[in-house]
Amino acid sequence: MNAKAASLKDGFFLTLEGIEGAGKSSAAPVLAEYCRQQGYAVEVTREPGGGPLGEALRTIFLDDRLHLDADEELLLLYAGRRDHWLTRIAPALAAGKVVISDRYEDSTYAYQSGGRGVTREHIAELARWAGITRLPDLTFWFDVPPELGAMRIRARRPDRLEQEDQAFFSRARAVFAERCAAEPERILRVDATQTLPVVHETLRIQLALRLAAHCS
Amino acid sequence: MNAKAASLKDGFFLTLEGIEGAGKSSAAPVLAEYCRQQGYAVEVTREPGGGPLGEALRTIFLDDRLHLDADEELLLLYAGRRDHWLTRIAPALAAGKVVISDRYEDSTYAYQSGGRGVTREHIAELARWAGITRLPDLTFWFDVPPELGAMRIRARRPDRLEQEDQAFFSRARAVFAERCAAEPERILRVDATQTLPVVHETLRIQLALRLAAHCS
Repeated sequence: MNAKAASLKDGFFLTLEGIEGAGKSSAAPVLAEYCRQQGYAVEVTREPGGGPLGEALRTIFLDDRLHLDADEELLLLYAGRRDHWLTRIAPALAAGKVVISDRYEDSTYAYQSGGRGVTREHIAELARWAGITRLPDLTFWFDVPPELGAMRIRARRPDRLEQEDQAFFSRARAVFAERCAAEPERILRVDATQTLPVVHETLRIQLALRLAAHCS
Repeated sequence: MNAKAASLKDGFFLTLEGIEGAGKSSAAPVLAEYCRQQGYAVEVTREPGGGPLGEALRTIFLDDRLHLDADEELLLLYAGRRDHWLTRIAPALAAGKVVISDRYEDSTYAYQSGGRGVTREHIAELARWAGITRLPDLTFWFDVPPELGAMRIRARRPDRLEQEDQAFFSRARAVFAERCAAEPERILRVDATQTLPVVHETLRIQLALRLAAHCS
């Protein structure tokens, strides 16, 4: 372990959030590479998925033939998240790594509360039950208008969540905005309508600042 | 719908409970056949499984490579149970059927609380969260000593739960006994050490009495 990795005593937990087509997934390897260049040990992960249980559940979660209701989605999400936290995130943080997760807790509030109309308190109750209490050290919220997100994913075969309509994504976006306003220190809005090089450069700079502050 | 089926206004919800090798699963078709002979419409189901989500989760739940912890098991169980309740049990009861489920809520307390040591209150909290509030009208608890249960299943290839040791099943049995003592009207202990014909005859008689009382 080099000096920088050693200095991240409790690791650094970064999450990437935003609606479909915002550019999160292409940013994850860029940020991971940047961290490695800076001498940090990195763990890249995602949700739904992440731990072995989450990966097994991912197929179920994205299967539109199962007609999951919002509470069933939440029970599966938190089973997967608990496993993700216990088997991957917590051990990586304990080992002093930078953990980069493509989606985490904020997505649940955006999609299940904003999108599906579950109350925030109902979600928070389950999160507490499942032992999900540590928030990320930093969250990049990739903000794009739903129309632009939809245009970007048109080329891909959309999965169940991506098939939701634009009103759904507008409500999800509103929850991200609300959470960003409530926790400005943790959640950083990134204008994801910009070109990828511009977005990635912004992310690198912001991450560098936060990592430096975290290590000092 | 014949007269008897029509008279079961809110259906009749019967569950079969007990440790592995107690004889629940072989009793389900016998009781279903008996109900049909008596003119009732019947729905036979099981847990884990039952609804489409539960069936998809069943494979995951019984996979010993995933190393689920007790809370993860519970989150999956209640996702499956909610789906089971909403898609199969509640509609069948609403249609006036006799629903026979091989395992339900009592198994969760026996295995996750008795077996794994989760507190009953922690389970009850999740059950409430998931909207599992209606208890069965009648539960047959197939009581056998764990040693006898183990002997009976030796011939089969045991799945993950069946591989638990006898101390685990003894603790599970103790929880069944405790629940039976607390709810003697709902939970009927059946001495499952007896031969199958004797057990099945007892079940038929008890079920007939309860159905008659339920219809009157």
